[in-house]
Order: sequence, then C-alpha cells, then structure tokens
Amino acid sequence: MIEHLYERLKAYYDEMVAIRRYLHQHPELSFQEYNTAKYIANYYKALGIPVREHVGGNGVVAKIVGAKPGKTVALRADFDALPIQDEKDVPYKSTVPGVMHACGHDGHTATLLVLAKALYEMKKALSGTIVLIHQHAEEYAPGGAISMIEDGCLEGVDVIFGTHLWATEPTGKIQYRTGPIMAAADRFEITIQGSGGHGAQPHKTKDAIVVASQLVLVLQQIVSRRVNPLQPAVVSIGSFMADNAFNVIADTAKLVGTVRTFDEAVRSEIEREIERITKGICLAADCSYQYAYTRGYPPVVNHEEETSFIVKIAKQIPEVTIVEETEPHMGGEDFAYYLQKVKGTFFFTGAKADDVTTPFPHHHPKFDFDEKAMLIAAKMLGTAALRFLTK
Amino acid sequence: MIEHLYERLKAYYDEMVAIRRYLHQHPELSFQEYNTAKYIANYYKALGIPVREHVGGNGVVAKIVGAKPGKTVALRADFDALPIQDEKDVPYKSTVPGVMHACGHDGHTATLLVLAKALYEMKKALSGTIVLIHQHAEEYAPGGAISMIEDGCLEGVDVIFGTHLWATEPTGKIQYRTGPIMAAADRFEITIQGSGGHGAQPHKTKDAIVVASQLVLVLQQIVSRRVNPLQPAVVSIGSFMADNAFNVIADTAKLVGTVRTFDEAVRSEIEREIERITKGICLAADCSYQYAYTRGYPPVVNHEEETSFIVKIAKQIPEVTIVEETEPHMGGEDFAYYLQKVKGTFFFTGAKADDVTTPFPHHHPKFDFDEKAMLIAAKMLGTAALRFLTK
Amino acid sequence: MIEHLYERLKAYYDEMVAIRRYLHQHPELSFQEYNTAKYIANYYKALGIPVREHVGGNGVVAKIVGAKPGKTVALRADFDALPIQDEKDVPYKSTVPGVMHACGHDGHTATLLVLAKALYEMKKALSGTIVLIHQHAEEYAPGGAISMIEDGCLEGVDVIFGTHLWATEPTGKIQYRTGPIMAAADRFEITIQGSGGHGAQPHKTKDAIVVASQLVLVLQQIVSRRVNPLQPAVVSIGSFMADNAFNVIADTAKLVGTVRTFDEAVRSEIEREIERITKGICLAADCSYQYAYTRGYPPVVNHEEETSFIVKIAKQIPEVTIVEETEPHMGGEDFAYYLQKVKGTFFFTGAKADDVTTPFPHHHPKFDFDEKAMLIAAKMLGTAALRFLTK
Amino acid sequence: MIEHLYERLKAYYDEMVAIRRYLHQHPELSFQEYNTAKYIANYYKALGIPVREHVGGNGVVAKIVGAKPGKTVALRADFDALPIQDEKDVPYKSTVPGVMHACGHDGHTATLLVLAKALYEMKKALSGTIVLIHQHAEEYAPGGAISMIEDGCLEGVDVIFGTHLWATEPTGKIQYRTGPIMAAADRFEITIQGSGGHGAQPHKTKDAIVVASQLVLVLQQIVSRRVNPLQPAVVSIGSFMADNAFNVIADTAKLVGTVRTFDEAVRSEIEREIERITKGICLAADCSYQYAYTRGYPPVVNHEEETSFIVKIAKQIPEVTIVEETEPHMGGEDFAYYLQKVKGTFFFTGAKADDVTTPFPHHHPKFDFDEKAMLIAAKMLGTAALRFLTK
Repeated sequence: MIEHLYERLKAYYDEMVAIRRYLHQHPELSFQEYNTAKYIANYYKALGIPVREHVGGNGVVAKIVGAKPGKTVALRADFDALPIQDEKDVPYKSTVPGVMHACGHDGHTATLLVLAKALYEMKKALSGTIVLIHQHAEEYAPGGAISMIEDGCLEGVDVIFGTHLWATEPTGKIQYRTGPIMAAADRFEITIQGSGGHGAQPHKTKDAIVVASQLVLVLQQIVSRRVNPLQPAVVSIGSFMADNAFNVIADTAKLVGTVRTFDEAVRSEIEREIERITKGICLAADCSYQYAYTRGYPPVVNHEEETSFIVKIAKQIPEVTIVEETEPHMGGEDFAYYLQKVKGTFFFTGAKADDVTTPFPHHHPKFDFDEKAMLIAAKMLGTAALRFLTK
Repeated sequence: MIEHLYERLKAYYDEMVAIRRYLHQHPELSFQEYNTAKYIANYYKALGIPVREHVGGNGVVAKIVGAKPGKTVALRADFDALPIQDEKDVPYKSTVPGVMHACGHDGHTATLLVLAKALYEMKKALSGTIVLIHQHAEEYAPGGAISMIEDGCLEGVDVIFGTHLWATEPTGKIQYRTGPIMAAADRFEITIQGSGGHGAQPHKTKDAIVVASQLVLVLQQIVSRRVNPLQPAVVSIGSFMADNAFNVIADTAKLVGTVRTFDEAVRSEIEREIERITKGICLAADCSYQYAYTRGYPPVVNHEEETSFIVKIAKQIPEVTIVEETEPHMGGEDFAYYLQKVKGTFFFTGAKADDVTTPFPHHHPKFDFDEKAMLIAAKMLGTAALRFLTK
Repeated sequence: MIEHLYERLKAYYDEMVAIRRYLHQHPELSFQEYNTAKYIANYYKALGIPVREHVGGNGVVAKIVGAKPGKTVALRADFDALPIQDEKDVPYKSTVPGVMHACGHDGHTATLLVLAKALYEMKKALSGTIVLIHQHAEEYAPGGAISMIEDGCLEGVDVIFGTHLWATEPTGKIQYRTGPIMAAADRFEITIQGSGGHGAQPHKTKDAIVVASQLVLVLQQIVSRRVNPLQPAVVSIGSFMADNAFNVIADTAKLVGTVRTFDEAVRSEIEREIERITKGICLAADCSYQYAYTRGYPPVVNHEEETSFIVKIAKQIPEVTIVEETEPHMGGEDFAYYLQKVKGTFFFTGAKADDVTTPFPHHHPKFDFDEKAMLIAAKMLGTAALRFLTK
Repeated sequence: MIEHLYERLKAYYDEMVAIRRYLHQHPELSFQEYNTAKYIANYYKALGIPVREHVGGNGVVAKIVGAKPGKTVALRADFDALPIQDEKDVPYKSTVPGVMHACGHDGHTATLLVLAKALYEMKKALSGTIVLIHQHAEEYAPGGAISMIEDGCLEGVDVIFGTHLWATEPTGKIQYRTGPIMAAADRFEITIQGSGGHGAQPHKTKDAIVVASQLVLVLQQIVSRRVNPLQPAVVSIGSFMADNAFNVIADTAKLVGTVRTFDEAVRSEIEREIERITKGICLAADCSYQYAYTRGYPPVVNHEEETSFIVKIAKQIPEVTIVEETEPHMGGEDFAYYLQKVKGTFFFTGAKADDVTTPFPHHHPKFDFDEKAMLIAAKMLGTAALRFLTK
C-alpha cells in the first residue's frame, strides 16, 4: 500500500508544483484567505471528497472515509500568507503587492491536497478515516487552529501529524523532537507613570526613565535567578520609549517586549514575576504602572510515542537521508492547540536544494524553498496516516 | 546727584512704560533682532549719545563719557524674545504670531534706555564713563554676550552690573548672591550602538536597551558619589529612545540629557565622568557609543566686593523693601561671560505686583511683570554706576 | 573692660597650658569622665565660683553673676576623650593606655576654665550673668548636651557661644558660617532576608546578595533624584556582608551605612526614602527586610545675627589674622542641641602652628594642636560674652 | 553467561554488604585514602587478580584478562569519603570522627569488588579484558580521575561504564541521559579595588561596594542575554564581603561565586564574559580588580551509542522496574575526564528503599542508601561488560 502511495505521489508531483505556484502567485493575508479556501474546497469537490467549508472561519476540512472501520488520523496544512513584498525574480512570483507566501504555507497546502488525492484513490483498502485539516491564519494570533478546534475539526480524531517545510535545512533531512519543539511566544507592555518636570529639579519629579531603566535591569533576573536553569526562557525588551526635550524629566516611559518559554508553568510564573517586579520597583519609586501581558500561541509539545513513530517512518523513506533531533525553535506555531487535544507530533521537513548555499530565511522578501521537499513531506504524512490506520 | 537721578527717572517713567510696551508688541527671536537693534540705536542717536551698532552681531553699545576722567562702568540689558505664542489679553500684546517677550527683556531694554537718557543729562557732573551694553540673543546658546565681548564691548570697562526682572518675586525685593547665582546648563547625547536581532535570541545580539538602561542607573552615581556633596549638580536624562517591534532586540538606544553645575571644575569633571562611565559600560557589553557634550552658558559667578556694593545700594533705595540672599538658580544666563572678564554682579529685581497672587512663570504664554519694577531696576543700576564712578 | 580681660588672659596663659597638659595626661572616655568633672568643679570651688555638678550626668555648670542685672550668656566647652592610643612623643603624652585627647577637648576645657577665672575677677563691672557649660560626652551619641539641657543648663540663657580648636587650620584664623555649619550624622542598618540554597539552583532561592546589590544601586538615587540639588546630602553604605561558600546562594545580606544632611526635612525624607526603596525592592524580589535608622546629632545651625556678631569680634582681636566663611563640615557635634533652644553660634579657631606643615587630623594617634590658639579662643569667647552683656 | 553472573552475584550479596559496611565504618578523606586503597588491593591479591597500586596517587587498577582475545571494557568505582560527622544510629556507623561515607562511594567500591570476583570466576569464558578502576578523590577537585588517566588507567580501554547509587530515587530505577548528564562546576573570585575614605566624603573615594553591587547586577545578564537560552547555565555569587564601619567608604569588596554549565564553549564564554564585564565596570568607576576563575570538573557528557546500550541492558534486568531519562544534574563528577578519552556512559542507580519516604540527600549527616541497590548496580555493570565483550 505504501509503495502504491509513493507511485501515485510521484505521478502527481507536477500537479503539486503547479498548485503550489498558483497559490504562490495568489497569496492572501491571515483571516482574509477567502479565495484560497474556496480553491481548496473546490479541489476536494472536484474529486468527490466530502468537504466542510468555513470551519472556524476560513478553515476547510475534508474527510477520506475508508471502506473498513478503524481509527481516525488527521493531517494539517496551513494556508495563509504574510504582509511582505515578494522580491524574488521567478515566474511564480506573487501577483499581490505587499503580500507573499514567505513561509511555505503554499507548499504545505499543495502537499496535502495532492496527498489527499492519492489517498482517496486508495480508499477501498483503507480501514478508518483520514481527516485533512486546511487551517487558515497561522501567522497571526490568535490563529485559526483554536477556532477550527472549537468548530469540531478534531472530532473523532485519534492522532494528528503536521510538518513545516524548512528552507534552511537540506532537502532529505527530517527533524523531530519529543516534548517542546516550538516556544510559547508572548508580548507584554509596561508603562511607568512617574511625574515629569524640569531637568534641573529632579527632586520635584519622579523620573520615569530612571524607573524604567531599573526595571529593564531587574527583569534580567527572571531568567538568571527565578527560572529553572534547565528550562529555556527568554525575556526581551524590544522597545523603550520616553521622548522628551533634553532638559525635561520624563513623565512616562513605555517598555514593550516578548517572553519565550516551552513550559506552561514557567510561562505563567514569568507573567506573574514581571508584574511583581514592576510593582515593587514602582513602589520603591512612588510611581504607578500599567501592565498588559498578551499570550501568543502555547508551546508546541510533541508526544513521545507519536514522535518515535514518525522517526521510524522517516528512516524508511528513501529520499530521507538524515533524521535528527532538533533543538527547540524559539518561534511559535498554533499547531500547539491540536496537540493539547489529541496525540501527535509536528516535525520539520528540510527544503533547501543542494545548490543553495545561503538560503533566505523564512519571512524574508526573497524566501523560496526546494519544491522537491513537498514530495518528501507528502510521503512522510501519507505513510504516517496509512501506518497508523493499519497498526 | 543720586537724588537728581531719581527725579529724572520718575519723570521719565511713562516713557519707560511706553518703550517697554512698544517692544512687547514687536518681539524678535534671538539672532534675528534687527528692528529692535535699530530701535535702540535710533533712541541713542536721537539723544546724541554715541552708539556703535552691529557689535558682535545685533548688539548695540552706547557710551556716556563724563566731563571728567575716571573709571568705566558697564550696564547690560538683553533684548531678544522667545518662540512662544502670547496668550495674554492686554493692549500691548505681541503682534507677531508665535513670538513673545516672555522673559522680560523688553523691560530690561526700556529700563536701560531711559536710565541712559537720565544719566546723559548728568554728563557734565560725571567723572568717568558709562557703557550701555544692549545685548542680543540671550535666550539661545551660544548667546550674544560672547561675540559682543570679542567685538570689544568690554574694552576699558572696570566693572559691570546687570539685573533680571523677576516676575515671581514681589516688587520691592532685591535678590543677590556672592559666588554662583545661576547654573551652567549643558546638553549631552549618548548613542549606544549594540547589535540588534530577534527577541528570542538574545545571545546573538548586544542588547542596546539593556546597556542604555544600565547607563542611566550608573549615571546617578555621578551626583551621589563623584561630586562633592557641597557642590550642587544635576545630571538628568530627558529622553530615552529605542523604538522597535516587541519581538526585536534593539540595535541602538539614544539618551539625551542635561547637566547643571555652578563650578567649572565640577562641570568639566561631569563631562569627563559621563564619558568614562559610558566607555566602561560599553566595554562591559562589547558595544560602542557616540558621545556629544555641548556646553551651554557657564555659571554666573558674582564677585564678592561688587555684590556687597550692590547690597548696600539696595538698602538705600526707598522702594526696595526686602534685600535677601537668594539660593542659586538652576537656569543659565550668558551674563556669565562678562563676569569672566571683569568684576561685577548680577541680581534679581522683584517684579510681581501686590495684587498678583499666582504669577505666571517666565517663559509662560501668559507671562507678564509689574512695570513699576523697571523704575527700581533703573535706580539700582543708575545708583551703582554713579556710586562706582565717585568711589 | 575688653583690654583688661586680654591682659588677664595673657597673664594666665601659662596656667592655661598647664591645665591643658594635665588633662591631656589624664584623658577619660565619654560618659566616664568622673575625674575630669571633679577637676573642673574643684577649680571653680577653689575660686569661689558657684558650681553645679552632675548636670545631666558628668556635666559641670558654673555661673558668674555680675554685680548688675542683665542678660545671660553661656559659653560651652566639652571635656571627653577618645579610645585612641596616644602615639605622640611629648612630655604631656596620655598616661592612660588606649585613651587620648585626640580632638582638643582638653584645650577647650583649659580655655574656658581660665577665661572664667579672668571674667570672675571682673564680676563687679559685669551686668548680667555668664554661664560656663562644661559638657561631658560629645564624642559618643546620644552625647552629653541633650541631658544637660534637660537638666536645666540653659535656664535663663539668652545666647550661647562655642568654638572648636581646629588643628588643620592656621592659628590666627577664625572660621564662621551662618546656617548649617556641621552635618547631621546618622546610621542605618538594613538586613535583607531572602531564602538561601544551592548555588546551582537559583530558582529555588531568593538571592539576598542580588537584592542587596540592587538596593545599593537604587539608594544612589536618593541623592541624585530625590533631594534638592541645593541641599547637601550623603548616603553611603560602609558595610555589605553576606559571607557564604562559593556554591551557596545567600540567605541574608546586611548593609550598614551613614546619612549626612544639614536640614531636618531632608534628613527625615531620606530616612523615609531608604525604607520606601527597601520595601519596594524587597517586594519585587519577594523578600523581607529589617530596617533600623539611628539618628546621631542634628545639624549645627548657626543663627545669623549671632554669627555676624562673632565675625565682628573676630576682626577686632589682634591675634586673629584671617576671618573666613567655612564650607559646612560633614562631621557632627552635639552643640546642635543648644542652638535648637537658644540663639548662638559655633565657630572654628585655627590651631596649627606656623612651623607645622602637614598637621595630623583630629582623631589621629599623633594629633596635637598649637596651644597659643587657646588664648585666641579665650579672647573670642570672652569678648563675645562681655560685648553681649554690654549691648 | 549472564544468568551465571546473576547467580554468583546473588550468592555473594552478603559479602558485598559486609564490605560496604566495613568501608562505611572506616572512611578516609579525598587524597588520604591510604587504607582503603590497601584494602581494595588486598582483596584482588587474595583472589589472584593482577592489580596495580598507587595509580595516579591512591588509585587501584585490577585487570581480568579473558581466555580469548577481545575488546577491553573498564568499570569505575570511586572510594573517598567526606568531611562530615556521621549522625546515623546504625551498627556500621563511621568510626572516624568528622569523616563519613555520605555519598555512597563505599557502596560503589563493594559493588565493584564483588562483581570483579564473580567475573573473574568466569574468566575462561571471557573474550577480551575487564579493567576495574578504583578511583580515589572524586569529592575534591582536581580529583583522582585525571591523574589516574595520566598514569595509564585507560590504556587499551575501548569503553567505560560507571554508575552512582542515588539515594533519593527508588531502588529499581535506572536513570540515563545521552549528552550532558552532570554539569561543569567552577569557582570564581573577584576583588574590586576602589579607594576608601570617610562616609561623608564620597567624592574623595571610589566606592568599592557600589562598584561590586553593580557588578552583581550586570553579571545576571550573562545568563539572561549572552548565553543561548537552550543552554542551561548558572552564574551565582555566594559571598559578598566588604566589612567596614558604618561611616566609612569601602576600599575593597570581594565576590566569590560559582558557574555551572554543560558545554565547554558556554563555559569558556562565561569565564571570559565575567572578566569583560568586571573590566568594563571597573573602567567606568576608575577602579581596578583581581579575577581568578578556577575550573572544577568538566561536564559529564555521555556518548549516545553506549547510553542506548545501557538502556537496553537496564530493560532486561529483572530488578529494574523503571528506566527513565533524567534531567541533567547541576552537580559535578570527575567521571567526565574518562568520557573525554574513551566512549562510555554514566548512569544513576536508584537506592531508596520502599519504606523510606523522605530520604536524606547525599552529603547529609544522616545519609544512607538501600544496600539492595548494590546488587542492581553490579548486574548493570556486569551485564554491560559481558555484553560489550560478546558484541
């Protein structure tokens, strides 16, 4: 059955590329992917595969129900693009000014559509169900996953697999990790309210710049003193704004920053600690403050058994030449929400062609990836689905 | 002779007010006081008093040479206005949008012109010379004093006196101080050049916000640890700018601030210490920096004997009801330069009418002063000149 | 009358020296000056001058009541010694191991005793009363002044004068100052209670060293930001103690320091600010603290009229060659308490002989002073008393 | 052959306990283990096993050479005790005041001796060689491993295994980890040389307490900003000493602390960064410093293949009920040096009896362990040796 799948995928590879390029030329921003969703749904409709549209927004869910009963496996691909101007010089360059598939979600979608077509042809031999989750809005919190789940996309699902094409790792490499593989990425904002005045009369003021500076320094202690050294965590201030004349003392100062963690307890502790420190320092300086902590996606935490399962599969796919454990990535992914509900794993599929030496990173205006990697991704996900249903 | 002077001044008081109001209606910004200079020069020409124009720019210097030889005393008044919209509701309100005599220099000028007229009438009885220095551009560094001195306005001068009408002290009060009476007011700018990057990867960056925050804290030690506690000094950061996205680490951060001192040695030490501290902290953080320290006016340092001289005079003027030592002011004045060259003193002449309870401070859009104080100022300066020449 | 006094003092100079040397050989520590007090009282008794012993402890108060009624002037001399080993090589070296008159109080006492003798002889010509306050325990807080005042030593007193022989200024110089001349000198202690643990597991601890370090830095802002720059103030941490093995995290850290001020409001504000800052920083770090602030003597604040009075007197004494305003001293003196109750002034009498180039400072094991300065001090105080009574 | 080994070990279990208890009663401090070394050597001599004494100090190395040629596997046990007073109430309590086997090295030694006896009996069936490394001085840097290696204990060795009985994990559990399992534990000392003085005159000093406090704060940034967040690292200051009177400003301040890392590059970077920061902050404050960084043991970094090998063995031993990956330990072990030279792995053998609920931690005066765990350790090491030689 696996061999059969691989043959079909190979046969359909050109279609996969064509779909990807079409999508690349017609990117849509997060939460505005109306045409892309339509395109996906139509593809399934044309094949006769049952499809549900508008799942939790622009999400699309198709189902391949095998002839025999069995378990249910879900495969997920995201399909939104980014507010970046495409600067590549290729025929399939984006036709939409300022919008671009700069993260490879076009490839994810093409991969899953064509894989679905191949699997659907094997329907009669299947025991169980394959759910194809096409998710909108991965790039922009709160993301599409959470609303699609609320709208039932995981109903009956036993396991879920997802991958990200990764353009800075060579094609042929699969990267996995048990436990946290992508970070929780949060945002916070602190405004220190002091009391301004003339630069020559500090004693009549409460200098917001001095207070905020102190805060920046003490926030360093969250990572250095308060978080378990075995738990990766980052607290960074990206912006410090207090714009006044040289001979004035600042009335307010505003800090904006990010927190990255891989563990919910650490995440919550940091959220609390930032406030405790801010509160204490403001008390010391007789100032007040405003604090807002906005949670981005939770960490993507892969399940052990499903990760081992994927590792075994990777080792059996001919085009896969390297299978390696990756260090966790500090970026975020709303695949995290699926893994909070069902078992599964998220992995990286290398997508850098041999002749590319210094690939442009994801989100770069010249980003591109090796389309051959789509075939590997399709084999990985397809094999996982079939093997899981025949376990 | 003094009595005679007082009579003349009283007789000319209405003219003094008229001149002041005319100037108030026709303010000119620092270094652009062309018409005001012309007006002043014409006043002297009309009286037949020898006058030199364009002294060091828009400066005007007149001379009353007594019949008998003797010493030379200089009296100074400044005549520039400020870029402030006049919001008073009076008949003599500024007619120039956005420009206003919001510091009383119109009063200084009216005082000195009419005083000169009165003194000129007493010319035959005079031993020595009275130099009338009408200075442009006091409000805007580098100021007019320095170029007028370079252009010879102090040549032959033995002593100089100046006063500032002070609208927040009652009319009838004279404030003096031996030694420093107004501060040196300087400006500095520090740019920290770190190395930016992604907020999740601090180890690949040199976080300019953290470095600048540290700098803000350590700069506090200049006043707390490095300057003699008996020497007043202020180091304030007015502006801290590092404007980035929340998930970015700052490449640069810019601090702008002010230093106030009353002593040249302390001033120079602080200028050096800021750089030493910046250099050390940048070394610690492997960052670089740019540092610019711009000196404003030096401190106004009154001479002891001349100050005692003025105090004695103040006590003899009937309208003067209070003579008190003032605490040093943290603001700056380029009268400082004259006192670096010749002996003299600078004092404050109260100019708040009895019925004003909460006067608007200098540089306020509704600033005004009690015109009767001009008469007191004229008597103070005139008496000082006459007494000095007859000593 | 003044001339007569000067003649008597000159005649008794040898006795003055003898008394000073006797006391120098027999120093007694603060609050233990039993024999010195006895010696002083006996001196008065032998002369027939009424004397009260055990005033507020070891204090001795004598009174010279003039033949005619009048005002009452007090003169004060302190008489305790220090816990220092005398290392001088002179015949009158201390005979008590580890105890020494290393601050000149022996000289103060000899001066006042002999001056009293001379004044007593002029009793019949006197209008009013001269109170001779011999104060114990100036060197050790809470000092003797406060208890002597409570015990009535200032009853009926209209004015008080005191001086300190000053061995680092030349004999012949008198230093005065209106307003604050000596600082309030206080002590504080802060213990940070964190939660200790293993150096490798900071997240299980609350690191008291980090918290106390932060506190040290933020305390700098009291002087740099919270106190009026025209108000001299010092906050210094002398001791930072957290003694643990290298691989341990500190449970507690203890800071001990001093505060110097010249103004009661500033003093109280600093006392409060230290606690506010400590409280805030401990809140930020989830630690607790103990704070104790112990007031030493208040600032010595000289009265204006009495200081001018002394300046005039100084200028008339032949041996006085320089009369100058001194900068405030940062040290403390419990003469401060007398000036809180009655008018008066405290001044410095230079006591460095011409041939001494680098005098040992007060409290040094080799400290000594020019005994001729005692004669000047006696003339100053004696003249002040006589002039005051004849005003 | 494995079965045979297990039978022999079971039969000799009482001897194992007896040896352990004898050693427990006769502990010797690191580098002073003369009698323990003798005891070990004599045990081998009595069995006829070739033994080399004084290897790199008090080390003892025995060799079991199989009848057939083959590879060489080394097993290591350490045998030094700690300067702790035994407070247990057991018959085998330490007889040496202040010295105690409080870390289980007595158990390691008993395990290895008896295991060697059992393996020696199987000599004829063996292909290859088993090297028994009895290492002195594990508890005290620089440790015994490094000198034993220099003295040849690893010559010809292909692989090495070692274990630590772990009294806070239940008997029956084996904990493994690929890569870093124990930290590098280093020590550093920084002395800030400022310039002391009177607490009231900060401007005449360079306040070492302020500088050292600043240093403590900035050192926090090493972990928060400079080290990859995925790399565990700790920088802790255990001791901050600047002991002066309250009214003095500190001349010097001394910091002593520890650094924990799992990666040599990170370790070296931190060593350099501490100095860079110290240098910069001293430059900013015009102070000097002394810095000493003393490396303890490097991290123990297990090899992947050998760790998998041990995991498989653990799963086959009947008494082993749990095999789990452990988080890295922040403590150090000089087993690290062996793994820098040859392949191998170090694992933990749980040694808490079921009826012990709150075991005393290692290095506690009441420390003890479940002796049955020695049998498990012996089976683990013995199986590893036999399996390795028959691979």
